[in-house]
Amino acid sequence: MGKLRYAMVGGGRDAFIGGVHRKAMALDGQMEFVAGALSSSPEKAIASGRELGLADDRNHARWQDLLDDELRRPASERIDFVSIVTPNHMHYPVAKAFAEAGINVVCDKPLVHSSEQAQDLIATVGKSGSVFAVSYNYTGYPLVRHARHMVRSGQLGEIRKVIVEYNQGWLANLLEGSGNKQADWRTDPARSGIAGCIGDIGSHAENLAATITGLEIESLCADLTTFVAGRKLDDDGNLLLRYSNGARGILISSQIEIGGENDLRIRVFGSLGSLTWHQENPNRLLHSAIDAPPRILTRGCPWLCDAAVRATRLPAGHPEAFHEAFANIYAGAAEAIRARQEGRKLSSLEGDFPTLIDGARGVRFIEKTVESAHSTAKWTPF
Amino acid sequence: MGKLRYAMVGGGRDAFIGGVHRKAMALDGQMEFVAGALSSSPEKAIASGRELGLADDRNHARWQDLLDDELRRPASERIDFVSIVTPNHMHYPVAKAFAEAGINVVCDKPLVHSSEQAQDLIATVGKSGSVFAVSYNYTGYPLVRHARHMVRSGQLGEIRKVIVEYNQGWLANLLEGSGNKQADWRTDPARSGIAGCIGDIGSHAENLAATITGLEIESLCADLTTFVAGRKLDDDGNLLLRYSNGARGILISSQIEIGGENDLRIRVFGSLGSLTWHQENPNRLLHSAIDAPPRILTRGCPWLCDAAVRATRLPAGHPEAFHEAFANIYAGAAEAIRARQEGRKLSSLEGDFPTLIDGARGVRFIEKTVESAHSTAKWTPF
Amino acid sequence: MGKLRYAMVGGGRDAFIGGVHRKAMALDGQMEFVAGALSSSPEKAIASGRELGLADDRNHARWQDLLDDELRRPASERIDFVSIVTPNHMHYPVAKAFAEAGINVVCDKPLVHSSEQAQDLIATVGKSGSVFAVSYNYTGYPLVRHARHMVRSGQLGEIRKVIVEYNQGWLANLLEGSGNKQADWRTDPARSGIAGCIGDIGSHAENLAATITGLEIESLCADLTTFVAGRKLDDDGNLLLRYSNGARGILISSQIEIGGENDLRIRVFGSLGSLTWHQENPNRLLHSAIDAPPRILTRGCPWLCDAAVRATRLPAGHPEAFHEAFANIYAGAAEAIRARQEGRKLSSLEGDFPTLIDGARGVRFIEKTVESAHSTAKWTPF
Amino acid sequence: MGKLRYAMVGGGRDAFIGGVHRKAMALDGQMEFVAGALSSSPEKAIASGRELGLADDRNHARWQDLLDDELRRPASERIDFVSIVTPNHMHYPVAKAFAEAGINVVCDKPLVHSSEQAQDLIATVGKSGSVFAVSYNYTGYPLVRHARHMVRSGQLGEIRKVIVEYNQGWLANLLEGSGNKQADWRTDPARSGIAGCIGDIGSHAENLAATITGLEIESLCADLTTFVAGRKLDDDGNLLLRYSNGARGILISSQIEIGGENDLRIRVFGSLGSLTWHQENPNRLLHSAIDAPPRILTRGCPWLCDAAVRATRLPAGHPEAFHEAFANIYAGAAEAIRARQEGRKLSSLEGDFPTLIDGARGVRFIEKTVESAHSTAKWTPF
Repeated sequence: MGKLRYAMVGGGRDAFIGGVHRKAMALDGQMEFVAGALSSSPEKAIASGRELGLADDRNHARWQDLLDDELRRPASERIDFVSIVTPNHMHYPVAKAFAEAGINVVCDKPLVHSSEQAQDLIATVGKSGSVFAVSYNYTGYPLVRHARHMVRSGQLGEIRKVIVEYNQGWLANLLEGSGNKQADWRTDPARSGIAGCIGDIGSHAENLAATITGLEIESLCADLTTFVAGRKLDDDGNLLLRYSNGARGILISSQIEIGGENDLRIRVFGSLGSLTWHQENPNRLLHSAIDAPPRILTRGCPWLCDAAVRATRLPAGHPEAFHEAFANIYAGAAEAIRARQEGRKLSSLEGDFPTLIDGARGVRFIEKTVESAHSTAKWTPF
Repeated sequence: MGKLRYAMVGGGRDAFIGGVHRKAMALDGQMEFVAGALSSSPEKAIASGRELGLADDRNHARWQDLLDDELRRPASERIDFVSIVTPNHMHYPVAKAFAEAGINVVCDKPLVHSSEQAQDLIATVGKSGSVFAVSYNYTGYPLVRHARHMVRSGQLGEIRKVIVEYNQGWLANLLEGSGNKQADWRTDPARSGIAGCIGDIGSHAENLAATITGLEIESLCADLTTFVAGRKLDDDGNLLLRYSNGARGILISSQIEIGGENDLRIRVFGSLGSLTWHQENPNRLLHSAIDAPPRILTRGCPWLCDAAVRATRLPAGHPEAFHEAFANIYAGAAEAIRARQEGRKLSSLEGDFPTLIDGARGVRFIEKTVESAHSTAKWTPF
Repeated sequence: MGKLRYAMVGGGRDAFIGGVHRKAMALDGQMEFVAGALSSSPEKAIASGRELGLADDRNHARWQDLLDDELRRPASERIDFVSIVTPNHMHYPVAKAFAEAGINVVCDKPLVHSSEQAQDLIATVGKSGSVFAVSYNYTGYPLVRHARHMVRSGQLGEIRKVIVEYNQGWLANLLEGSGNKQADWRTDPARSGIAGCIGDIGSHAENLAATITGLEIESLCADLTTFVAGRKLDDDGNLLLRYSNGARGILISSQIEIGGENDLRIRVFGSLGSLTWHQENPNRLLHSAIDAPPRILTRGCPWLCDAAVRATRLPAGHPEAFHEAFANIYAGAAEAIRARQEGRKLSSLEGDFPTLIDGARGVRFIEKTVESAHSTAKWTPF
Repeated sequence: MGKLRYAMVGGGRDAFIGGVHRKAMALDGQMEFVAGALSSSPEKAIASGRELGLADDRNHARWQDLLDDELRRPASERIDFVSIVTPNHMHYPVAKAFAEAGINVVCDKPLVHSSEQAQDLIATVGKSGSVFAVSYNYTGYPLVRHARHMVRSGQLGEIRKVIVEYNQGWLANLLEGSGNKQADWRTDPARSGIAGCIGDIGSHAENLAATITGLEIESLCADLTTFVAGRKLDDDGNLLLRYSNGARGILISSQIEIGGENDLRIRVFGSLGSLTWHQENPNRLLHSAIDAPPRILTRGCPWLCDAAVRATRLPAGHPEAFHEAFANIYAGAAEAIRARQEGRKLSSLEGDFPTLIDGARGVRFIEKTVESAHSTAKWTPF
């Protein structure tokens, strides 16, 4: 089975997340980086591609050139998918163009800037048949998948309450404007969208809760705050949630919580038990049944579900972490891409990755959160 | 220095918290249990007093008899204070009567059923001069006092955010009506008041946050839920808070979170750092400054404030816990009682206990939370 | 049921552990402190007793006076037991005299300075019938008792390995001679005995392992070190152990491990599972069965053994700690004392406290450890 | 800068560690897997190479064929190094042959079966100039490197004590002979060498302690045990250590400790402070200074040393783990290989990997441990 060839848009020098995507794709030796348009600055794009060993004829100054070039190439040379890791505002035009051309896409989150754009992408993909994955990377952790399994198979009973948090502190001061590229674009409405913290990391929290529980938000009540003077977007956002089954939720996100590194965590409570998982210590999942002592489920143990087992490379106690979770998203997308290429259906365990549906719901979550934050009504319908 | 003599109202057979109060008072050997009216059932009251070694002439069937008897006795025999540990609905009449008679009072929380009652108690004590402590016991932990010190002395900068939680799971099923006395009265509006979970434990969370930060709630947004069919009061309550200085708060409380034992915890975030404390592991306080690695402050260490040192009996590593925190509330009240008896002022470190002001604010918190829960407006002014 | 009356020898001003014993005895309201000889300095003894509220005629300058006085009193006034909390070198003469007189004794550990003294005490008690408890306080923790239950009832299978540690750092510098009374006597061979660290805390580790497992040491191999220049006794001691059933042990103890507070911990491994317990966080016990995820057993939960339940005062999540564990030792001794007074046998759950057998074995452990430390042979028979 | 080309010996189907090495090498996109002899079974070797995408002319049935083929190829095609991941008994002949031919080598641990072999390899490399790395992977963790920095720069003062542990439970039953390839060869003296547990994982513990502290073992005292009936090698080994500077050590290793997954941990105590690190939660390092609260140092934080920073790919809170640590060993070897190819010296930060010296000392450690285990003398000189 040959490697999948991919191009990248964004992810050049000074970018953070592009390199993470490349490492994640490299890890299992199943993907080959062959083309790119790595920056919105043509000079930086070319220089970045050279540093990363792209052939000159596949190293482009503009993403449109990349797309044109790929479409000119014979199928035997063409990329199997494109990975889009630009700032948020470029997701839509790039994803739209590649998907329209029938090329498979893995796109970073939040997907796009508006629900209209999201719906348009869904329609586009509906026509072209492209595989489209959204890199909500945290859902790639094996124990997130086992948590999903436990909830979905009823081991927690009826879900009553979800507490999901994403706590960071790196924007406790005015970092933007001081040369930090990450801080610059993530706090800039033109590139980041209508939300700051809640768009950047609150959206991960929403996705994590939805992935594990499958619950649908019925209405929400949001309080968004900008604590740091001079900042253009929210740096803290907290929500009360009501789910359609009657469950309640609390979503906490912040980028001004000093001491918070990348503290994504979730607790799910049902009528029969609860689960607790923490991204910074991702190899364990705590399960409390109503009538038994809490149990510590660790990655790599024999009592985990198939989806968790498939997402595991190392035995218990040999920790896996962020890169591997990311790689699992790509591995799921790769299965779908190969199935498309081979004209076959995915088995039930294959193709485990966040889809456009997740991406679109995430965009709606951001919109509704901002709407609620400006509303005097307690509950904003979702 | 002789022991302080006390009477107890409530706390007879089958009661839980009365015994805790007695042990807390016994711990330091500074108090003597001499009289009581230990149950609303006269027979149970008398039997309980006998079991606990009360003399027959000071073991009463009704609290009114206890009060009458005490007032008849010469000062040399009379109790120094009364400890009220009945279900909530009896706090007001008992506390009012003893305070009116000039007797010092330690009363359990929540203080009373309404702000009117709370204001009346404040007025009563204003006239009689009684010392009046409210046993918000968690504020007696040494590291809570050190957290208060750090916040109040500016070590965290301007406070921006508070996340306080009180997670329990013991009422995940319909326990009331099955012979559990605790479950019975705590879920009964007649005895517990207008709120269940939020009154029983949410009020502790409110008090803990207020004690540490001194912040004033400006408005709140509450979602109260009764998850267990057949229950008469809320068993889950979550709030967004806005403080008068612009800080934001989240208060989470639940009695249906399976796996939660007595999981009271708080995080306080300021512009210069943060604090994290957890009641189930109370001998450590995590401090993250904005420009340094997180530090673990442990009870008994030389770098703690005077108020924490005074509340400490054992060296670091020799854990203290629930009883000792309770004892610290009583020790603070005892200092005030002795000062009143001696006609002297308290020093700045003495008399460290929750007062009627805390108690009244706690009652208001319950009222406003219930009001918000029924409101369609997002923010209910406090 | 009246309170038990006790006298104390040692534990005056500046002493640490005497006050802990008194608080532990006070906690449950079942004991009354009525007499004492609280210091080897007559002036300090008298002054300390006055501060603690002893009546003048029961506040003695010398322990011999205390004993004489008690023997003169009618049984209705006499103490029910004596608590001996002096530095180690005084344990033997005081305990011997009181036990010989038929008075019940609770004596601190290590019991005495030599196996000869220990055997003599055993013989003495054999004649007089006194109840004799040795305050190895850590065995009073409910979860230590549950660990004992699990091992003894075979839930861990055949025990293969024990790792027990007692890590402290308070003597990392030369503290003795600087006015620290604790450091002074504990590093002084005349008062502490032939061992420092291994006698003071290593002996607790030995007792904890023995209490939980019931295994008998067959031979040991010790390395004792004095790291701090000018110190007269070992401040660090580590051992390999061989048990008579073929199990292996490691015992680590130190008073120079900076960062160690009172870090007593134990791991027990059997053919079917393992247990882990840590004194600084004593309300949880980790159990790993060979074929299931690790379980967290918490104090106060319904699945604990009767001995643990009897040693528990508060519900799960309401932490109990050092004082309560100490109080459980005294509660067990009190049951034996009352049974002796009433001429009845103890039930199987009553009288759960460390005995002279434990004390004598602990003395032997110290002797054999020091012998091994001076030996060039690997294994010193026990 | 082109990728480094490598061949692998061992690591075919059913092997565990070969795949880990390949992923680690793939992660950073700097290495290319071009040739191999992946199994001692010729059929399995060929089949494994095909599955992994090796070209037929570089996919060999025997390692000798691989070596011959490489030596026939022009430098422009030849591998830059070989990675040896066979069972232990094949390390020596393969490493010797490749090193003799001047090819750079990364070899798994324990290096070889005897000190004679180790010395021979050192001599061989001395002549050929090959770069030779030994994949003690745990030393690749950023916080292990920071721990080394802190110790070596004197921040802990004079080192007094080291406690290093490697606790596993996977061999608590007789797993060998049941179809588990790992269990089979690791418990087989012919393939594993003279030691089981102590060779497989005890050697990692030795290396971790030596890497961090730089201390030299002066003498050791070992107790090796085989708990599982029918097993041919030790499955548990514990040592007391004496270092040449007077420090003391305890080394605990086991494969029968149920509940242990891959629990490698170390504590280092000096006269000024201590460090604690745990492989299963590798992104934090606890530092306790003698005069300050313990600090939690996390990977990715600004206060870490250059060597830790260079070994870090992701920001704090985005956990890195086992694969990345492994990749860091290879990255260090790659720097040395490139420097050799370019005829330049390494800078002080480059070439950070375990060398033949580490490998030879590790072999000696195993030999001396087994010698001590059979000795009746307490201390076996190292």
